[in-house]
Amino acid sequence: MDLDSVCGGRGICSKCQVAPAFGSFAKHGITAVPDALSDWNAVEARYDRKRGLAAGRRLGCQAKVLGDAVIDVPPESQVHRQVVRKDVDRREIAMNPATRLMYVEVPEPDMHEPAGDFERLARALADEWGVEGLSADLTMLARLQPVLRQGAWNVTCALHKSHRDTGWRLTGLWPGLHEGGLFGLAVDVGSTTIAAHLTDLSTGAVLASAGIMNPQIRFGEDLMSRVSYAMMNPDGAAEMTAAVRQALTTLTRQIASDADVATEAILEAVFVCNPVMHHLLLGLDPVELGQAPFALATSGSLSMDAGALGLSSLPASARIYVLPCIAGHVGADAAAVALSERPDRAEERTLIVDVGTNAELLLGDGTRVLACSSPTGPAFEGAQISSGQRAAPGAIEAVRIDPATKAPRIRVIGCELWSDDPGFEEATRAAGITGICGSGIIEAVAELRLAGLMDRSGLIGSPQATGSDRVIADGRTWSYVLHDGRAAGGPLVTVTQGDVRAIQLAKSALYAGARLLMDEMEIDRVDRVVLAGAFGAHISPLHAMVLGMIPDVPPDKVTSAGNAAGTGARIALCNIDARREIEELVGAITKVETAIEPRFQEHFVAANAIPHDSAPFPELRRVVVLPEVQFGASGGRERRRRRG
Amino acid sequence: MDLDSVCGGRGICSKCQVAPAFGSFAKHGITAVPDALSDWNAVEARYDRKRGLAAGRRLGCQAKVLGDAVIDVPPESQVHRQVVRKDVDRREIAMNPATRLMYVEVPEPDMHEPAGDFERLARALADEWGVEGLSADLTMLARLQPVLRQGAWNVTCALHKSHRDTGWRLTGLWPGLHEGGLFGLAVDVGSTTIAAHLTDLSTGAVLASAGIMNPQIRFGEDLMSRVSYAMMNPDGAAEMTAAVRQALTTLTRQIASDADVATEAILEAVFVCNPVMHHLLLGLDPVELGQAPFALATSGSLSMDAGALGLSSLPASARIYVLPCIAGHVGADAAAVALSERPDRAEERTLIVDVGTNAELLLGDGTRVLACSSPTGPAFEGAQISSGQRAAPGAIEAVRIDPATKAPRIRVIGCELWSDDPGFEEATRAAGITGICGSGIIEAVAELRLAGLMDRSGLIGSPQATGSDRVIADGRTWSYVLHDGRAAGGPLVTVTQGDVRAIQLAKSALYAGARLLMDEMEIDRVDRVVLAGAFGAHISPLHAMVLGMIPDVPPDKVTSAGNAAGTGARIALCNIDARREIEELVGAITKVETAIEPRFQEHFVAANAIPHDSAPFPELRRVVVLPEVQFGASGGRERRRRRG
Repeated sequence: MDLDSVCGGRGICSKCQVAPAFGSFAKHGITAVPDALSDWNAVEARYDRKRGLAAGRRLGCQAKVLGDAVIDVPPESQVHRQVVRKDVDRREIAMNPATRLMYVEVPEPDMHEPAGDFERLARALADEWGVEGLSADLTMLARLQPVLRQGAWNVTCALHKSHRDTGWRLTGLWPGLHEGGLFGLAVDVGSTTIAAHLTDLSTGAVLASAGIMNPQIRFGEDLMSRVSYAMMNPDGAAEMTAAVRQALTTLTRQIASDADVATEAILEAVFVCNPVMHHLLLGLDPVELGQAPFALATSGSLSMDAGALGLSSLPASARIYVLPCIAGHVGADAAAVALSERPDRAEERTLIVDVGTNAELLLGDGTRVLACSSPTGPAFEGAQISSGQRAAPGAIEAVRIDPATKAPRIRVIGCELWSDDPGFEEATRAAGITGICGSGIIEAVAELRLAGLMDRSGLIGSPQATGSDRVIADGRTWSYVLHDGRAAGGPLVTVTQGDVRAIQLAKSALYAGARLLMDEMEIDRVDRVVLAGAFGAHISPLHAMVLGMIPDVPPDKVTSAGNAAGTGARIALCNIDARREIEELVGAITKVETAIEPRFQEHFVAANAIPHDSAPFPELRRVVVLPEVQFGASGGRERRRRRG
Repeated sequence: MDLDSVCGGRGICSKCQVAPAFGSFAKHGITAVPDALSDWNAVEARYDRKRGLAAGRRLGCQAKVLGDAVIDVPPESQVHRQVVRKDVDRREIAMNPATRLMYVEVPEPDMHEPAGDFERLARALADEWGVEGLSADLTMLARLQPVLRQGAWNVTCALHKSHRDTGWRLTGLWPGLHEGGLFGLAVDVGSTTIAAHLTDLSTGAVLASAGIMNPQIRFGEDLMSRVSYAMMNPDGAAEMTAAVRQALTTLTRQIASDADVATEAILEAVFVCNPVMHHLLLGLDPVELGQAPFALATSGSLSMDAGALGLSSLPASARIYVLPCIAGHVGADAAAVALSERPDRAEERTLIVDVGTNAELLLGDGTRVLACSSPTGPAFEGAQISSGQRAAPGAIEAVRIDPATKAPRIRVIGCELWSDDPGFEEATRAAGITGICGSGIIEAVAELRLAGLMDRSGLIGSPQATGSDRVIADGRTWSYVLHDGRAAGGPLVTVTQGDVRAIQLAKSALYAGARLLMDEMEIDRVDRVVLAGAFGAHISPLHAMVLGMIPDVPPDKVTSAGNAAGTGARIALCNIDARREIEELVGAITKVETAIEPRFQEHFVAANAIPHDSAPFPELRRVVVLPEVQFGASGGRERRRRRG
């Protein structure tokens, strides 16, 4: 077991505390007597006097083992401690950060041996810590002389060891023993939102999380409109790069302030993002990503200084790591999902779906991993939906329709009550009921199907055919009224036939992508489906399957991985072995390009029906009844529309 | 013999041209018939048609050897060609630059194998050129996609291989075959002047040399006044850093324009400078260099991107190499002198003297090298001299005094004539005779001694004692009139007793430094003295020895190395092995610190006499007679001054 240490055994940092236990230990076959450890020495006494050492604790660098002993090493004293992941408690993050603190006493300059201050620091670090091949950039060299003198030749160094190169890099420096900690940022740069987690690089604890809107939205809502902006405007890409870097600067300052941490001590950042965001963050023109063959400027992982990335809120010497991209449509965010979910280690055939504007799909069976991206479009996010809106207070997020009465119950973001619970009206009055968000429209369409209001082709039936007055005319098609707030000056929230078609297009693309991966792996069914992404956390597995978004599996085998991309970023931030692993894994992933695969179109057409034209979905039918209604043949407005 | 190539054997760059010879070669014992080489193939024919191939030349990548043949490989086709050093023809520079050009055909992107463009470039370079571990900064990654497409997937890369790390760095990129060449700058950043040589990195030829005044002069004439400026002003060091970097930007643009070379193709620069300039160039506060123990922030060599050094006239990806410093007073410029003169390989005990405001001294005997700096002050440069001036037109640079008549002859910068040659007056009328420069004052003082006008203690005799009316009163001391231009409205140029004292202080410091090194090496005499520096080129060896500036050696063993620091910078620019060698050599040099060596003061006092109080200078006395005059005891004004 490796004991943590910053001071290198000087008894001043107390990172190496241990708790000896005494008595008879049958399990170990020994009896530990107090004499088994050396008495407190002067160093421990000094530490206890100055800072206090908890009862029963000893400094691991001072106490000597003199006989049989049982020593408990508390997690915070272990170098390779395990950190429980808060968001999903299935796995732990093993700590092995690239950057660590080392306290060192540097020999004073000597005119007879006129090595520079940096060279003497390097030699002291080599002698005391085994650090070989130290380098420093000019910003660190410029700080060196004053800090050494301020600390009376005792300094704490932050040293970064790359997972790729030999040698260490000096990235931080404080006079004396630095007790302010060392921090890193795990950042997911999304098209809409940039989310960051400020992490203690010693404990792995997340001290603060914060999000900020991606200011690139003013250049285009979705990725392709931003690529277009870059194509149409000579400085368009540079403008968007400046915007996202400025937002990162603001976000960094905010999150550091939230956690009361000095930005000077944030010496690492890991970025994950989709390919277009990846290029725009790095200052690379994304224009090639807007057209076949969707060539990335670079697909490998990248390491650089914060200064090179133009992040002015971080020290210029802070180290940046950007995860590799899997393909032109499957970015570093998908790689982070893979790092979090490890489909290469799956014991079952596992499909991981990261639903967003584009859905990324990973399929792994423990031997191979396949990946593709599906052009779902933004319908799952509530865009291109007549009453669609972002997931914000006032948005309908859950829908249930009574199969007998055909009446809906809804739940709205910002309120835990269903609409038929007492007090719902009062509770929602302030925010109002303003529209329907992504999870809401998915549930609504699935419930229409379950309630017999819509047939398997996706056609909403007429009031006559369905026997429901919630169905109203909308041009030549029918819409279903989810909520009528007009009396109170609010909107009429309906699910239109157009909304259903938009959802059908999106879900067909998603399902077709999954099928392509299954074809490539030569399997007919998967065992488990993992929904990743903040949106994935809100999708009802059952409704997703009624819709036929995902392949048929027992509903309890559909789980949410939460913000898996963010978790993957945190793992890469806390553990350099994970960087090597994800780089290897990304290299080994089989990439399937949906745009050029002829079978994609076939799968797409077959997946248009709800849940599917040909796939029987037996697991789904075990838990729900799908009414066998048919509205298309009986004509009505839909038939007329087709002829018209 | 390694054949040069940029195109990698495609027959389009013609760097590999060879000249086969035919006939009977007794020396080699073979007869070479024309059939010994394959016939011209289509590739050679195409090249000859498009560009023309000189008669008798073949493309080395195309011609096949089919029998006994004698092939002449002209120097320009050799990778490790030797370049004759123009300035001093004693040695050659072997070419082995860090950066070279490689033409490569990159596979087009493929959606089935979605590696990024950079990754495909890296694989092509590995396959065709054996380049492993390629990296690129964001500026190069940003250029990659457009250049690859502009060149239809054929590009020329500039690749830099560090002498320290494994791996290559992409530093330049052109569509198709780049025929514009590749260039580097060797720069000597002096306190007064910044001098740069623009060098062809393929041939080693110097295409242009240019100098610019160091604009830091406005912050202080000499080094210590600049250190003071940094100490007294909060942003003083940063101001001086900005000034020197701005000057380098101007100088780079000027020299590139002089040679008609695009700055985009200048992808390397090597810097040498004294320790204070070194720190100010790098943005390091030089304050510690102004006080004992004169600690350098860093003494090792440095490698970085031009972007990190803030040199905006060079591509951000251009690689910078800064030679190591030897000690707090013995800088990278002295290391460059060592690289040029190689005292570690000297077959004789060789003292190398780089004369400037501070003189740096190197002593080598082929087994050890010792180094020190001597605080000569600026007298040797004409500063602190009553009629002193910079070496510029109008300055007296050479002086001869007739021992019989005590009359002087002078020569002035800008005119090859001596003052007693016909036409001297007309030739010097335009510029005038304005003062005396460094080499002039050294000769003048030495000539005063040789002519018996000044005794060994440095005292100028009275008109009575010397019998010369060129000696005039100057307060209580005597001055010698070199030139009286007052009748024509010009100045009276004299050598005053104060001037002699200033030169004595300077030369005593220089000699004492040399003696310290000799003590350390436990030798009593050296075999050879090399004078380095632009100033060294103008010092008369005989006069330097009369003055006792340098230890006694036969005058023909005193040679000038010209601008050895600049030559050392050029060597490091052209050959990465030289970088390793100078780093090793600097590490092995024994540094002697004059400031703390008690014997320095003893040597200094003993060296005050001209040539010396105790050292007999037998070699000097073999070629000149030093009149045994003595003016101090006979009183005169000097005696009165001492009493007064």
